[in-house]
Amino acid sequence: MIKVGIVGGTGYTGVELLRILSTHPEVELTAITSRKEDGLPVADMYPSLRGKVGIAFSSPDKARLTDCDVVFFATPHGVAMAQAPELLAAGVKVIDLAADFRLQDVAQFEKWYGIPHTCQDVLKEAVYGLPELNRDAIKAARVIGNPGCYPTTMQLGFAPLLKAGVIDAGSLIADCKSGVSGAGRKAEIGILFSEASDTFKAYGVSGHRHTPETTEQLQRLSAEPVELLFTPHLVPMIRGMHSTLYAKLKTDISNEALQALFEDAYKDEEFVDVMPFGSHPETRSTRASNMLRLALHRPGNGKTLVILVVQDNLVKGASGQAVQCMNLMFGLAENTGLQHVPVMP
Amino acid sequence: MIKVGIVGGTGYTGVELLRILSTHPEVELTAITSRKEDGLPVADMYPSLRGKVGIAFSSPDKARLTDCDVVFFATPHGVAMAQAPELLAAGVKVIDLAADFRLQDVAQFEKWYGIPHTCQDVLKEAVYGLPELNRDAIKAARVIGNPGCYPTTMQLGFAPLLKAGVIDAGSLIADCKSGVSGAGRKAEIGILFSEASDTFKAYGVSGHRHTPETTEQLQRLSAEPVELLFTPHLVPMIRGMHSTLYAKLKTDISNEALQALFEDAYKDEEFVDVMPFGSHPETRSTRASNMLRLALHRPGNGKTLVILVVQDNLVKGASGQAVQCMNLMFGLAENTGLQHVPVMP
Amino acid sequence: MIKVGIVGGTGYTGVELLRILSTHPEVELTAITSRKEDGLPVADMYPSLRGKVGIAFSSPDKARLTDCDVVFFATPHGVAMAQAPELLAAGVKVIDLAADFRLQDVAQFEKWYGIPHTCQDVLKEAVYGLPELNRDAIKAARVIGNPGCYPTTMQLGFAPLLKAGVIDAGSLIADCKSGVSGAGRKAEIGILFSEASDTFKAYGVSGHRHTPETTEQLQRLSAEPVELLFTPHLVPMIRGMHSTLYAKLKTDISNEALQALFEDAYKDEEFVDVMPFGSHPETRSTRASNMLRLALHRPGNGKTLVILVVQDNLVKGASGQAVQCMNLMFGLAENTGLQHVPVMP
Amino acid sequence: MIKVGIVGGTGYTGVELLRILSTHPEVELTAITSRKEDGLPVADMYPSLRGKVGIAFSSPDKARLTDCDVVFFATPHGVAMAQAPELLAAGVKVIDLAADFRLQDVAQFEKWYGIPHTCQDVLKEAVYGLPELNRDAIKAARVIGNPGCYPTTMQLGFAPLLKAGVIDAGSLIADCKSGVSGAGRKAEIGILFSEASDTFKAYGVSGHRHTPETTEQLQRLSAEPVELLFTPHLVPMIRGMHSTLYAKLKTDISNEALQALFEDAYKDEEFVDVMPFGSHPETRSTRASNMLRLALHRPGNGKTLVILVVQDNLVKGASGQAVQCMNLMFGLAENTGLQHVPVMP
Repeated sequence: MIKVGIVGGTGYTGVELLRILSTHPEVELTAITSRKEDGLPVADMYPSLRGKVGIAFSSPDKARLTDCDVVFFATPHGVAMAQAPELLAAGVKVIDLAADFRLQDVAQFEKWYGIPHTCQDVLKEAVYGLPELNRDAIKAARVIGNPGCYPTTMQLGFAPLLKAGVIDAGSLIADCKSGVSGAGRKAEIGILFSEASDTFKAYGVSGHRHTPETTEQLQRLSAEPVELLFTPHLVPMIRGMHSTLYAKLKTDISNEALQALFEDAYKDEEFVDVMPFGSHPETRSTRASNMLRLALHRPGNGKTLVILVVQDNLVKGASGQAVQCMNLMFGLAENTGLQHVPVMP
Repeated sequence: MIKVGIVGGTGYTGVELLRILSTHPEVELTAITSRKEDGLPVADMYPSLRGKVGIAFSSPDKARLTDCDVVFFATPHGVAMAQAPELLAAGVKVIDLAADFRLQDVAQFEKWYGIPHTCQDVLKEAVYGLPELNRDAIKAARVIGNPGCYPTTMQLGFAPLLKAGVIDAGSLIADCKSGVSGAGRKAEIGILFSEASDTFKAYGVSGHRHTPETTEQLQRLSAEPVELLFTPHLVPMIRGMHSTLYAKLKTDISNEALQALFEDAYKDEEFVDVMPFGSHPETRSTRASNMLRLALHRPGNGKTLVILVVQDNLVKGASGQAVQCMNLMFGLAENTGLQHVPVMP
Repeated sequence: MIKVGIVGGTGYTGVELLRILSTHPEVELTAITSRKEDGLPVADMYPSLRGKVGIAFSSPDKARLTDCDVVFFATPHGVAMAQAPELLAAGVKVIDLAADFRLQDVAQFEKWYGIPHTCQDVLKEAVYGLPELNRDAIKAARVIGNPGCYPTTMQLGFAPLLKAGVIDAGSLIADCKSGVSGAGRKAEIGILFSEASDTFKAYGVSGHRHTPETTEQLQRLSAEPVELLFTPHLVPMIRGMHSTLYAKLKTDISNEALQALFEDAYKDEEFVDVMPFGSHPETRSTRASNMLRLALHRPGNGKTLVILVVQDNLVKGASGQAVQCMNLMFGLAENTGLQHVPVMP
Repeated sequence: MIKVGIVGGTGYTGVELLRILSTHPEVELTAITSRKEDGLPVADMYPSLRGKVGIAFSSPDKARLTDCDVVFFATPHGVAMAQAPELLAAGVKVIDLAADFRLQDVAQFEKWYGIPHTCQDVLKEAVYGLPELNRDAIKAARVIGNPGCYPTTMQLGFAPLLKAGVIDAGSLIADCKSGVSGAGRKAEIGILFSEASDTFKAYGVSGHRHTPETTEQLQRLSAEPVELLFTPHLVPMIRGMHSTLYAKLKTDISNEALQALFEDAYKDEEFVDVMPFGSHPETRSTRASNMLRLALHRPGNGKTLVILVVQDNLVKGASGQAVQCMNLMFGLAENTGLQHVPVMP
């Protein structure tokens, strides 16, 4: 059994880790920290876990995280980099669901997150945790920077096209829509029920931190310079993310060949579902599961390809992907504990 | 492996059966019928099941239901009673999620469902499928009338009190609220998104078919005549049911004793969670799981006890309960395939 | 033109006052205070008011509230009683949307609101602002305690029955459901979109401050002692309130006579709509309007009468009712500025 | 008073016309037709209109539409063109909310709507009813083709840029999102509450009938050939539309100059609100009002301009715009009866 610790388990990615890990056959939940909730049984905060998770929150000083095999950070940015060196020194692997180990470009990190990066040597060895594009490195990693939710959809949607060199890398557009849980479990006016339901808006249109993360990763797949325009929006739903991606084709290529490109790229991927050409995937078809689904469209048989990508932002977009990485790091079958059937309706 | 057939798998209780059964370790999905969708792969109608359910719908005449070990009817009222005799004769067990085998009082059935009961001999041997109150009979049954969603909450909420004789059986009130999926997957104006969201209403207040079903069952637990006032309401949420039950105490009994009554009644029940006295269970704490949670309140320490009961109407209120019955009928551990952790948020 | 000031205009009852008053033909919006938002144009906080409301928030010390004819308090409990004496001394009328002037029983106020009542002489002259039951007193009042949202529905639903003496005043039950805007515009976890949508729960079942308010008022209509069991619930919708009221009939009375009782009681009331016997009013049929609708049911022609009452909690349940009171206090037609047609869908 | 008839008043644009017209000071609602609901008082179908609309539906043969001054068609495509000639001959003006008189290109009409155009002489004189771009023609018109909801946002968002010639007309992208009421009040599975809530999807990505309508109109403003890629999506909200428009700048132009272009274009428009550069308009800021709001963004100060446009799809996107046209056609102030303050929250 893998002994697992979670730092910061009171937010949505934390409770989603608990949901997944509590039925993972190879995991023993060992410690979960919360400074504020020390001593509180996890199931008292989250009644959904009554009878499923028996442990209590403990303050960081009491939790013996160095006894774990792996520690997940479901914390604000900046926490993982403060604690990673000690854990690594004790032989504990680290999976950070925040941004501390996502961006190799430190200047970009500091610009977008507004804090200095205090752990650059660990960052250098950190591996970007997107298994479909980075599997071998993840298997060998001690430290994972788990991808952001939006970046996961953009990368898996653009990757086969960039690798094949069939699109203009310099004019990518990603019009993305997220459920409100993506904003976290924070007491903020803007995400109150009465503010965020029965309405729709964009946010961060002039600039968003997921742009540099995605660009850095996409650039690894492309010979040409990548330029990405990313527009996030907030959808009045709890879970779910839908990315509508636009790419200009620069070669003469048939729809069949484009479809084949995707089917081939993901033919061995359990968690990426390439739907028939012209499908309209719905976010709910992935709800509470680690699946990402996508489909291609070519309106008017023109020069622009539209790729529709959906996932559950808390699972494939966060905690499920983190567990997928853990499975790889510990030599388990990649889908262990991740075979939930999406909840519909 | 138990060979399972499903009649009428295109509605919500049908697709929920598929979600549960597709990961049930002792089940082989053998046939699923739909006159209209003959030949259509189930996963084409429900993309959430892509990669999880491989079979296609077949028309009733082609489906070899008599080869199954058990057949679930997720159909409108009246279908199961037409087909049950042939299946039983072939040694196939029957679990009906509609009302054909719920009410032993045929006159009541015919009054509330508006069709003649054409299968009264089978009805006589049919067992009401509420495991917590009827476990032994279910184990021995060939035919199950699976309880209605509302009746499940009302029975499990009132049962310990009626058995103990501490409340006035003649003045029960159940003010119940259901998510919209309870109305089924039918093309009707009243349950359109634009009609049923951001609003709240009662329906069927003057009389609802779940009243006689519940009264008949509660009467089995009570020496006094049971009178129940049941008021259903529609909540703008997909899944979930919340019943607020009011009972007049007729004896002098402490809150501790009342709480003990419930804890004792359900101490061995995996799917009934008695929360601490004074708790407010939320429907989402049961979402997509077979759990039912309840809590007691006694406002102003007065004579009226309030029991709050929540469940997922499609799981413990329908398909999960049906699988729980199946497990009992085939000698499996009762919780086999039913250990989903509720999805939160 | 009536010069109107608003204290605390940043919450939902405040912005709803602005929506209503900005098109009220006899009102000039003179001042709106907010300590925190001093100088901010109201329309910058609420873009829905761009082009409709030109004034800015001003800090309480700068706002010249004593120049107003009437001041509305859309503030937390305790604010109005601190400022009322000075305003009254300056000849300004006061309408408090919080609880400071609702309960004449000071001990009850202090028990339920947890603060001392510092303004009892003003409280003595304060009038409870429910026009349908208290019109003449409101016309003559200098100070109004505007009713709570739940109490409005409970009083208008029970009043004709209590006045006629046809029900048992000692066993009233009100099972009430409110949209989330009723909880206010506060940064609290429990009312986040991801916490409050797609779920349903009760709260405050063991005791809620709207019980003593309602009981005090109902008692004025009844010779017998009133006992009320009130159970509030939270509905995943923004606006709207639905109260399901249960009353035991103590006399032999026909359904026609009961219906006539209500139709007669409200025949001259523009804002109370008695629907046909057996109707199921929906909250959305009152959305964004000052209407309250109700309908009677008598399940099984038994001894219990069910009264269904709906309103928009922010209009008839709060700001609309406050404007209705203002109209009466200033000798205007009662419906001035309040003739919005409900928004459907 | 203008005598108004409505054909097909049972859908959402019909009931929204009723909401608006019932308080319009210059209108007398004269007739409303529905074959199916002949004799039913309108307020029985829509309780929100109780006390506001006194007339009943009448079957088309009984309704004396030729006595009206203007008739609105809130019907499926094809109805208006069948009845327009007779009405026009009787001197009645016609405003069609469906597509019969929107597209001057008959071949495109027949391709996208799948029916022959049987009224091409009337079509020739019909005026496209977008007042901000076509005011003078509307004033003089006898027949109006009221714009589609999506096309309204796309045209008002792109128009100032195309007129000024600062963008590449050949590569417009419109990623649009609509509330579910846009799909109408039809008994269809796909727009059931349990299908359309808590999820998000695109539809019609490969081709949608609003593309030719918008292209035809935009072409009138542009010297270069217009090419538009339009992607519609369904948002789990009742009302509201958000269009995210992408345009490539082809000239060197400052953000200030771009903002000035829009402010100048709409400086006299009461129903178009140009928000400050970099704003994020929310659909709810227009709810139940005739306002359209927009804001400009230029991510990374690059070559692509992003225009965010919001409106209520049932008001400015349909019925409000139709009344705006009517006001112009009858010489009334354009905003008569259209000054609703948006409902927030």
